[in-house]
Amino acid sequence: MFDFTFHNPTKIIFGAGKETLIGSELHTAGINRVLLVHGRNSVVKSGLLDRVMASLKAGNIECTPFGGVVSNPLLSHTREGVALAKREKVEAILAVGGGSVLDEAKAIAVGALSDEDVWQFFVAKEVERALPLFTVLTLAATGSEMNGNSVITNAETRQKYNISSPHVYPKVSILNPELTHSVPPDYTAYSAVDAIAHVIEGYFTKQPGTHLQDRLVEGIIKTVIETTDLIMADPGHAKARASFMWTATLALNGLTPAGIGAYSFPNHMIEHALSAIYNIPHGAGLSIVMPAWMKWYLAKNPSQFARFAKEIFGLASGEAGIDALEKWFVTIKSPVRLAEVDIPATDIEAIAENAEGLARQWGIDGLYPKETIAEILRLAV
Amino acid sequence: MFDFTFHNPTKIIFGAGKETLIGSELHTAGINRVLLVHGRNSVVKSGLLDRVMASLKAGNIECTPFGGVVSNPLLSHTREGVALAKREKVEAILAVGGGSVLDEAKAIAVGALSDEDVWQFFVAKEVERALPLFTVLTLAATGSEMNGNSVITNAETRQKYNISSPHVYPKVSILNPELTHSVPPDYTAYSAVDAIAHVIEGYFTKQPGTHLQDRLVEGIIKTVIETTDLIMADPGHAKARASFMWTATLALNGLTPAGIGAYSFPNHMIEHALSAIYNIPHGAGLSIVMPAWMKWYLAKNPSQFARFAKEIFGLASGEAGIDALEKWFVTIKSPVRLAEVDIPATDIEAIAENAEGLARQWGIDGLYPKETIAEILRLAV
Repeated sequence: MFDFTFHNPTKIIFGAGKETLIGSELHTAGINRVLLVHGRNSVVKSGLLDRVMASLKAGNIECTPFGGVVSNPLLSHTREGVALAKREKVEAILAVGGGSVLDEAKAIAVGALSDEDVWQFFVAKEVERALPLFTVLTLAATGSEMNGNSVITNAETRQKYNISSPHVYPKVSILNPELTHSVPPDYTAYSAVDAIAHVIEGYFTKQPGTHLQDRLVEGIIKTVIETTDLIMADPGHAKARASFMWTATLALNGLTPAGIGAYSFPNHMIEHALSAIYNIPHGAGLSIVMPAWMKWYLAKNPSQFARFAKEIFGLASGEAGIDALEKWFVTIKSPVRLAEVDIPATDIEAIAENAEGLARQWGIDGLYPKETIAEILRLAV
Repeated sequence: MFDFTFHNPTKIIFGAGKETLIGSELHTAGINRVLLVHGRNSVVKSGLLDRVMASLKAGNIECTPFGGVVSNPLLSHTREGVALAKREKVEAILAVGGGSVLDEAKAIAVGALSDEDVWQFFVAKEVERALPLFTVLTLAATGSEMNGNSVITNAETRQKYNISSPHVYPKVSILNPELTHSVPPDYTAYSAVDAIAHVIEGYFTKQPGTHLQDRLVEGIIKTVIETTDLIMADPGHAKARASFMWTATLALNGLTPAGIGAYSFPNHMIEHALSAIYNIPHGAGLSIVMPAWMKWYLAKNPSQFARFAKEIFGLASGEAGIDALEKWFVTIKSPVRLAEVDIPATDIEAIAENAEGLARQWGIDGLYPKETIAEILRLAV
């Protein structure tokens, strides 16, 4: 155990139909006027947006809709949202959607209270304040509903960068697992990969000996695998969808790293470069990067890989554990090789160069110079 | 998974020497004047109170000390604290001590803002507000540092009753595991029992099928057992003390029951009667009650007992799991029979009668009429 501060003030309201409480939650918080950030058509078609609007109306909350968020959300669109939030003088941001919508809403919440261009907070400046954020989640994956992270892509510079600040924890997040029943198998798989990726970064790169946190991580991974298999067999499996949703939240809400000391996010560092350049889904990128990185990292922490193999798969060697995880990614149809998402091996140098920028920002360029990143990526050819 | 609301806003600051931050935390929160609640001599002798006072002085916080909290904290002393808090017009309560001190501080925080007698909130009234509470924890056991619970004993009526309210979550809790190195073996054992008791209530009495929460509980129990064994062999084992401390916090901070639906606290219900009448340590009472209750409850949830035996002890039957837990209590020298704490079997009827009052308050008197409570207690003779 190492020193830590844990402070996660987000209120989670979990259950079927709970999105109808959003109006009263905003009202209780003294909010009168929100920017409602959402994606493209699905929340309109499903009727969710209408239900949310009706709840806002019942709570006397004025609402300016701002749609069009895409997955791997874009800086250009974020800037439009910031301008609109300022013009409409909204008092809070309400995000209705998946992790991309939530991440962009967080960036808008920061930009709305600043005269700086919002990108400055991703590359240079510390976040000092933000509008309060409320969310209605429609996709379980990123954990954005209960953390202070936001990842935005600058398409001009091909940088997929993040902010991480206590000021952008949602005040209230509503998780209705029924909203995730329509998530198709491919995105269900990518979500599972993402949740696993969130916990294995700390699990393998920290110092050994923090068994409580190891057990929390193992419990999360086993539950992700168990529930994903159930969902793949039956997309409407209510218990599995619900369990998966809460598990994905706990995978990145600060619980598993509390007390583990220093650790790093090499898989996310490499994957951000992949999806910044090729705009592939984050989870698809991660299922390619993770087995490759694990094969490369195995020798640096053999005892933890042996533990992983035993606890997760009941297997006797680190290699077997990595192999079992990769095979599981294959069974849920998430890609494990670059060619599966049409990235040619000849692009590896360019990806490694892009990733190195993030490695520098995150302070892990010493262990991950671009030659090393390229070496890891070649294991995914 | 069942519907739930999870909202735990307590900020945890964990690490050696962190108690010196209390002054600046209070200052940042805009507090100028606190009632400092503590126990008897140990925090004075150890120098902790001096360090806390120095930190308050550096933060320009005025402080009224209020010592003398005993384990199984008393209503009479709580009333004195309420009167003092009102007289001194303090703006917050600062608790420095273990779970008893924190529980009494919570009750004072409630009473200080009410014209009602504070006991009313334990037997009849809903808590609607409380002074903000800050804590420096010296004993890992009750989880009071990160929850909204307070248990107080009314010595006149022999009632050990509780409040449970979002208004008494501490704002900030400082956990310095080094402060627990001097906890003697008996109280270390009682603390371990208490932490296990906190998670097994939900684990066995909920509906089956919430595997994520099962795994969180199993991770907590395995870590409690592992770290307690290390501490018993070496009381200054810093890593084990630290891990134990955080594990005890997570055992009762709302994480493990989130999503499990309805469950009950029968072991605590029975134990509160024991310690209300005999003033034995809570953990000592629990290690007597738990194996007895488990033997009685086994037939009502055999699959979960089988799971418990397999996951915690690698054993093949529910009976074997209960037996292994009882034997472990014996190895750490926590009592498992009434006679070990000098309670004669002839008192069982009186204990059952006392416990029935709490069973009624908690709404479980249907399953636990006094005859049943007596039947369970006879398994601990």
